Amino acid sequence: MLGRTYDKEVCSAARALEIAGERWSLLILRNAAFAGMTRFTDFQRSLDIAPNVLAARLEHFVATGIMTTSGGSEGYQTYHLTKKGLDFKPVIIALTEWGDRWAAPDGPPIVYEHEACGGRVKHNLYCKRCAESPRPQDVTRSFLLPSLPT
Amino acid sequence: MLGRTYDKEVCSAARALEIAGERWSLLILRNAAFAGMTRFTDFQRSLDIAPNVLAARLEHFVATGIMTTSGGSEGYQTYHLTKKGLDFKPVIIALTEWGDRWAAPDGPPIVYEHEACGGRVKHNLYCKRCAESPRPQDVTRSFLLPSLPT
Repeated sequence: MLGRTYDKEVCSAARALEIAGERWSLLILRNAAFAGMTRFTDFQRSLDIAPNVLAARLEHFVATGIMTTSGGSEGYQTYHLTKKGLDFKPVIIALTEWGDRWAAPDGPPIVYEHEACGGRVKHNLYCKRCAESPRPQDVTRSFLLPSLPT
Repeated sequence: MLGRTYDKEVCSAARALEIAGERWSLLILRNAAFAGMTRFTDFQRSLDIAPNVLAARLEHFVATGIMTTSGGSEGYQTYHLTKKGLDFKPVIIALTEWGDRWAAPDGPPIVYEHEACGGRVKHNLYCKRCAESPRPQDVTRSFLLPSLPT
């Protein structure tokens, strides 16, 4: 049913979810992006994920251009994020900030840092016209395509 | 298996996923946040989602404080985003921007606007120390808690 529905979704958020919208996928991307993991066994051990599920997810990432593979020096295959995959990091950071605010009773367990200067990296919304950072409730959407479902 | 694994995840992104990390959940949140939907039948029709799945998702949102319910004037129940729910909008915007860039061959179908001035709303990363907008590959993470499992 999900597949059928997604076909009619003319929405970039829905399309993004189609590629990486599954919890394991996002945790795999997170570990590749921020823990520097590249090996099947490292993903598998760190996430305690079933090997067949992990294999399917990694294969999907390669098929959709989020990861590339290369043969490792000891014969094992390694997985590397492409530009498309790296570009998912801001989504993970946005998700983390929400979790920090609403689902971290003991405070944020990690912070994101700017490699060049060591400063903390945050995400925010900004308005291209007035340069303000609008509150979430002050953001609306407009359609650029006619007859969009929903 | 997912439940067991999430228990050991000391990560705000993982915790956020636990609450809203399922594709239907995100599409329901999107329609509540940006299409102003409040009624069960509107969510159901717009997403073509199975009623039992939708009911479970909405119930989960109410239980986790993302939505509240109120009785409608014609006897039906309506669902409204709380501050916690509204605060998820930046995540959806980040997801949309990724999809616009990597999964929208015909260009972005929608834009986000600042209600106050009509300007386009975008999402970005910024460094609190040097005020730059770092590229995704230049962002790393640091642990604030000891012995964190990846």
